[in-house]
Amino acid sequence: MDKKTVGLSGGFKGQTTPKSFIKNAIKGTKHTIAISSAKGGVGKSTFAMNFALALKAVGSKVGILDADIYGPSLPKMMSINEKPKSEDGKSMVPVDQYGVQCMSIGFLVDEETPMIWRGPMVTSAIKTFTQKVLWNDLDFIIVDMPPGTGDTQLTFAQEIKVDGVIIVSTPQEIALSDVRRGIRMFDKLKVPILGLIDNMSFFKTEDGKNYNIFGEGGVEKLCIEYKKKFLGKIPINIDLRVAADGGTPLVEKDPDHKISKLFIEIAKKIKKNNF
Amino acid sequence: MDKKTVGLSGGFKGQTTPKSFIKNAIKGTKHTIAISSAKGGVGKSTFAMNFALALKAVGSKVGILDADIYGPSLPKMMSINEKPKSEDGKSMVPVDQYGVQCMSIGFLVDEETPMIWRGPMVTSAIKTFTQKVLWNDLDFIIVDMPPGTGDTQLTFAQEIKVDGVIIVSTPQEIALSDVRRGIRMFDKLKVPILGLIDNMSFFKTEDGKNYNIFGEGGVEKLCIEYKKKFLGKIPINIDLRVAADGGTPLVEKDPDHKISKLFIEIAKKIKKNNF
Repeated sequence: MDKKTVGLSGGFKGQTTPKSFIKNAIKGTKHTIAISSAKGGVGKSTFAMNFALALKAVGSKVGILDADIYGPSLPKMMSINEKPKSEDGKSMVPVDQYGVQCMSIGFLVDEETPMIWRGPMVTSAIKTFTQKVLWNDLDFIIVDMPPGTGDTQLTFAQEIKVDGVIIVSTPQEIALSDVRRGIRMFDKLKVPILGLIDNMSFFKTEDGKNYNIFGEGGVEKLCIEYKKKFLGKIPINIDLRVAADGGTPLVEKDPDHKISKLFIEIAKKIKKNNF
Repeated sequence: MDKKTVGLSGGFKGQTTPKSFIKNAIKGTKHTIAISSAKGGVGKSTFAMNFALALKAVGSKVGILDADIYGPSLPKMMSINEKPKSEDGKSMVPVDQYGVQCMSIGFLVDEETPMIWRGPMVTSAIKTFTQKVLWNDLDFIIVDMPPGTGDTQLTFAQEIKVDGVIIVSTPQEIALSDVRRGIRMFDKLKVPILGLIDNMSFFKTEDGKNYNIFGEGGVEKLCIEYKKKFLGKIPINIDLRVAADGGTPLVEKDPDHKISKLFIEIAKKIKKNNF
């Protein structure tokens, strides 16, 4: 190492090389699809909920596992206010909403309670959700991943058979740096990437003018760079946001909306090409 | 506990009650201000960089510590491509850019390398950045916090004298749930909250029409609910985003821009009311 500059010490570097692990499917489910973004706030949870409902709309049995322990979005986006039932005090029955089986840390604590937890506690919660929830005969479980490349991602990659990841990003340069790191993490951990979504792609005003608020074309370029599939663009849309805030995702609330149709197209494509 | 529903077990609950700790200021700095959001992607890093440069513009000596280990934004937003120097191989000299002392995990690894680290590694990196960096005679160190309420937040709250937190949010309902949790975390950990910023507040088109893309008024309402100071609104602005993507934050690139003036006003207000 150059005496005048510093990098990571050898010990730290070693930690980025993964060992190999035995991976099992989540019990009661056929396929696990993780929705990831590395960066937060790119509309990943809105995508996850609508994508899950789109898979249901095309005939699959679907569950959603909200793996974002620090910032669970599922309870609000799917308007669920009940605690999961338990027959034996150990396992949990997922909560059914709009015909989808759901689980979130937000079901176990009230909405405003922060989970001020260090990593090992997060890992333990993720293990509970993947091992102690009685998912029932699902074709797909959609996992809404937290931002980052830490405990939750590692736990899934090492212990769960994840059939594929969909990476959601806005086209903004600074978001794309995080996505690059996300792609390299999943490649390194040998989790297949199904493709990338360009979210909040543009904003169309009432008089039909398009604004590339977050830039343009960045996600497509990244797909070429890393040889990943480009799964499509979803524009910024106020109906989509209002439906998520209101507790009924747009695909469920208004399946004929042009944005809902985009989700249904993506769901069909994913099913046809991968499963 | 109701036999039919499950909550958190006692052991888990206990973990949310903090112990008390001895807190020291970061060496070489007078005041530590953390920029936080609980939720990612609300423009926290863009705010942090521009706010730091605004404090510099009003006469303070400023440093920025990028505490987002999984998604460092500082190297790109401040266009820094060099590794920090070290005289003894243990401590690090922060990198000077635009008259601001900077440190980020992004200086130590190449841009695309994901930090696939579990919590304890993150804690260790944060300790290095607060204990082994030779910050030099700073009035303010601005800490760009990661999303969430986990290891990084806990490490700062327990071991560092944080003089205040500025919480940045978009006005969207689903972001506000995360902000509620953030407020309660800092209150619980006894870190003073200086106030809240309503970011990406609205989007003004070229013909002067305003769109409340992410909703309206939510952050102000939250300030009333939790008795916190409302520090102002910053609209969605393409110049602001382009400057951040381009590596020279708008306050530095064009201090007379109307958005730069907003940042400078906020910096003056924070300095006058709190320090």
